[in-house]
Amino acid sequence: MQAPVKHFADRLLELSEAKRSQLVVGLDPRMDLMPDDLVERAVRACGRTPAAAARAVLEFNRAVIDSVEPAAVAVKPQIAFYEAFGCEGLRAYAETIGHARARGLLVIGDVKRNDIGSTAAAYAQAHLPGPPASPPAPLPLGEGRVRAAWPAASEFHADAITINALFGSDGVKPFLERARQSGAGLFVLVRTSNPSSAELQDLDCGGEPFYVRVAALVEEWGACDRGASGYSLVGAVAGATFPAALRRLRQAMPHAVLLVPGLGAQGGTVADVTGAFDAQGRGAIVNASRSVIYAFRDGAGGGPWQQAVRRAAESLRCELWQATHGALGTAD
Amino acid sequence: MQAPVKHFADRLLELSEAKRSQLVVGLDPRMDLMPDDLVERAVRACGRTPAAAARAVLEFNRAVIDSVEPAAVAVKPQIAFYEAFGCEGLRAYAETIGHARARGLLVIGDVKRNDIGSTAAAYAQAHLPGPPASPPAPLPLGEGRVRAAWPAASEFHADAITINALFGSDGVKPFLERARQSGAGLFVLVRTSNPSSAELQDLDCGGEPFYVRVAALVEEWGACDRGASGYSLVGAVAGATFPAALRRLRQAMPHAVLLVPGLGAQGGTVADVTGAFDAQGRGAIVNASRSVIYAFRDGAGGGPWQQAVRRAAESLRCELWQATHGALGTAD
Repeated sequence: MQAPVKHFADRLLELSEAKRSQLVVGLDPRMDLMPDDLVERAVRACGRTPAAAARAVLEFNRAVIDSVEPAAVAVKPQIAFYEAFGCEGLRAYAETIGHARARGLLVIGDVKRNDIGSTAAAYAQAHLPGPPASPPAPLPLGEGRVRAAWPAASEFHADAITINALFGSDGVKPFLERARQSGAGLFVLVRTSNPSSAELQDLDCGGEPFYVRVAALVEEWGACDRGASGYSLVGAVAGATFPAALRRLRQAMPHAVLLVPGLGAQGGTVADVTGAFDAQGRGAIVNASRSVIYAFRDGAGGGPWQQAVRRAAESLRCELWQATHGALGTAD
Repeated sequence: MQAPVKHFADRLLELSEAKRSQLVVGLDPRMDLMPDDLVERAVRACGRTPAAAARAVLEFNRAVIDSVEPAAVAVKPQIAFYEAFGCEGLRAYAETIGHARARGLLVIGDVKRNDIGSTAAAYAQAHLPGPPASPPAPLPLGEGRVRAAWPAASEFHADAITINALFGSDGVKPFLERARQSGAGLFVLVRTSNPSSAELQDLDCGGEPFYVRVAALVEEWGACDRGASGYSLVGAVAGATFPAALRRLRQAMPHAVLLVPGLGAQGGTVADVTGAFDAQGRGAIVNASRSVIYAFRDGAGGGPWQQAVRRAAESLRCELWQATHGALGTAD
């Protein structure tokens, strides 16, 4: 993708205002939940193979993206569901990113990558765009050729990605350096939405839970990279399923955009997530995956399955905007 | 790959005895360090593109694998360096796994994946083989078709993988369930080898550092999955660069095979890692990446570059075996 130059948080918050939306739709394609006719078409074409899965996934994602586009600011493809289908699945991941961006949506690559510095730099090249003017200048063979930075592939490049900070600063900095070059965003795992997250993330570290110590680092890492909105390139993941933690984290990281997963199928409600927003109803985006993209599975509504997906997204958008702005906005 | 049925720790320790080796060679291909002529050939064929990179990486890895095979028990491809070249890079990752297994080496996929349960299950399908008898039975269209487990792609399947346990038990169990089906191994990040690892991993949690709490969970998670050797499917990553932590972790996790990175370029020495082994000189494997696969870059020795790689691997194998067994073994 062509590298954006504008600060991720600014792009995100402007799009959020324009669409009156704080909704992110998670693209977690599962063969057992996708529409039957779509899967059957793919199986007829390619058998019951990873290639058929990749084909079905891409067709499904394109339709979901087109359906949720009016109501969402971003989509968040979860790369695990594509990796499970190997190289062909990852090709579908890349094409999903392309389709979402062509529709004007921001893309958050949910990759949760993490490693030591030199390896984190390779992950950053894989998943984040580089500087906008990066010259594709062909170097002469033999002479400084391989010493120069080799062009990374751009097919997995997203507007922002999720990362795991367990390695500490030197595992985060390569991501931040790359993000700075293109105005891309990072969301550091701080408090995850799953039931057993407390086992390690809530451990008492000198009177504060572990996740609050991670939050302090997030605020520190993002200190030099704030946009016009006041929010930083370094955001944080904080689950909807722990509302008290969410409020605490909003205060602990005043400059971090919070990416809040766990709404819907995981049990979080709109009321649970209001604590993630600042006093102006900004500073957070809320992800729903299964409850939106498989909305047709509850049998309600009727009509093509895409309509159920569209309605579910618009309904969540309204609920979120109303809960944070006290008025029912309408999508463009 | 065809699913192995034997317990990973047993396979590993038997191979280790047979080869008198505890050496793992990290396959971290970097365009700026690979042999010039090899890179030039790829550039001539495909230009300065991800495809050229993938081609060079695979040719390099095959030669490295053939060179280190007599001295190593396993290779550990670091997937970040392949992801940076997109789908073509990941195809080279898959083919690297295939080549190493064909040479009788175990493969540890260094992927450090992590997520909530349903997503961890997708990652597990991507990177670990399933049950050996998994039937490829074609189901009839329409009827229970998509409900049945869809076959994951097998191209990234390794004998063991690294994972990050920050999500706690429910993010680890899907990996363990999958590992049990095929006797595959897991290495949970406990204490990483990078300089800033202390920032979070050393935080004092009720009188013990965070990483010791992770170690307790590792021992618990692996309690039901011990092989004939007494070692579990659930191992741990513990860096060579912190020898005191390594000794402490050997005691805290008596049933976990330790995967010890950080030897060589990262600063760890053979003396630093002896604390990772049990009294019989078993229970740990030691990874070296740059110091082996780019050994030809130090200019010593002469001859084809593959000879320098072979010598570096054999030299480390000897040093490790001598340090843990008090005698200089010879490779088969």
